[in-house]
Amino acid sequence: MMHRHPVDLAHACRLINHGPTVLVSVRHEGRRNVMAAAWSMPVEFTPPRVAVVIDKSTFTRELVLASGGFALSVPCRALADLTYAVGSASGRDVDKFERHGITAFAGPKLGLPLIEGCVAWMECRRIAEPHSEAAYDTFFGEVVSAQADARVFANSRWSIGDDNADLHTLHHLGGGRFAVVSTTVQARKH
Amino acid sequence: MMHRHPVDLAHACRLINHGPTVLVSVRHEGRRNVMAAAWSMPVEFTPPRVAVVIDKSTFTRELVLASGGFALSVPCRALADLTYAVGSASGRDVDKFERHGITAFAGPKLGLPLIEGCVAWMECRRIAEPHSEAAYDTFFGEVVSAQADARVFANSRWSIGDDNADLHTLHHLGGGRFAVVSTTVQARKH
Repeated sequence: MMHRHPVDLAHACRLINHGPTVLVSVRHEGRRNVMAAAWSMPVEFTPPRVAVVIDKSTFTRELVLASGGFALSVPCRALADLTYAVGSASGRDVDKFERHGITAFAGPKLGLPLIEGCVAWMECRRIAEPHSEAAYDTFFGEVVSAQADARVFANSRWSIGDDNADLHTLHHLGGGRFAVVSTTVQARKH
Repeated sequence: MMHRHPVDLAHACRLINHGPTVLVSVRHEGRRNVMAAAWSMPVEFTPPRVAVVIDKSTFTRELVLASGGFALSVPCRALADLTYAVGSASGRDVDKFERHGITAFAGPKLGLPLIEGCVAWMECRRIAEPHSEAAYDTFFGEVVSAQADARVFANSRWSIGDDNADLHTLHHLGGGRFAVVSTTVQARKH
């Protein structure tokens, strides 16, 4: 996709700093999957590390544990239906990519399936934390590649305006309703 | 505040499900503090549990460890300047409440200082996880009280519209620039 460009790892955490819902994708030995996750956050800028909640019941979790990696793609307004759909069914019995007509491209570091049409992408290596995973379904990962769509993330910053409304990020409120970040405010120092 | 109403603990996680920046407040033996945190997320609906990143350098962290509790208040557009201000200075040497003219009210369960003018509030008991705290600055907590402003969160759901723009939540992009969730979309099932 011509608008995709690499993001400096030092700024990778900015891609999810504002709390968007993400798509978690995985691949292992010919199997792949994608699910939606409202619960993720950065935990460190340098090295870039993130946390994401992946429920015990999910096929995604199996593949994360088997492969040692996961990708986060940040969907935008144009993908609201898809984001809801892949968060509502399990990929254990069906290939969600085929079912929903999802196009993926390979991540540059781990070859993980990144979701076309999203506006930002990261590949992460799982940092094994069996206790947090068991007690809180919380997986930690180190970001090893980062990319974004230059139409909405340029010069290492999100650029949200009236001219790119379809590319604004989604923030799940529940039941398939998403808040959309469509304006910004610049705070003044007191 | 007349618009404040209790939120069922079963729905408490919805208050931060969409990734808003929060204010973390603490109190211990006559000391109190408040800081901004862009990095928080729910980790479980039942019982309601959250994770929040609190850096080792912060005075807030000292008071969380000493007291065993922390509160999250969700600021809105009208509080953008304040949110940036309390995220930019340490409360070790100054009472930020006095300095910034912040009014707080006592949380119903733990008596923690909740921030007036915000649109949602939770009190949390720290779940001691020394390893996650040390390795990722990630604190886990169980939500023991939850409240929200009925003008923007009613019937256990966020209600975001043109009529309550000052009450929309903030999502930090970096450098004091916040994205504001000001519209919503309802996804359709595929």
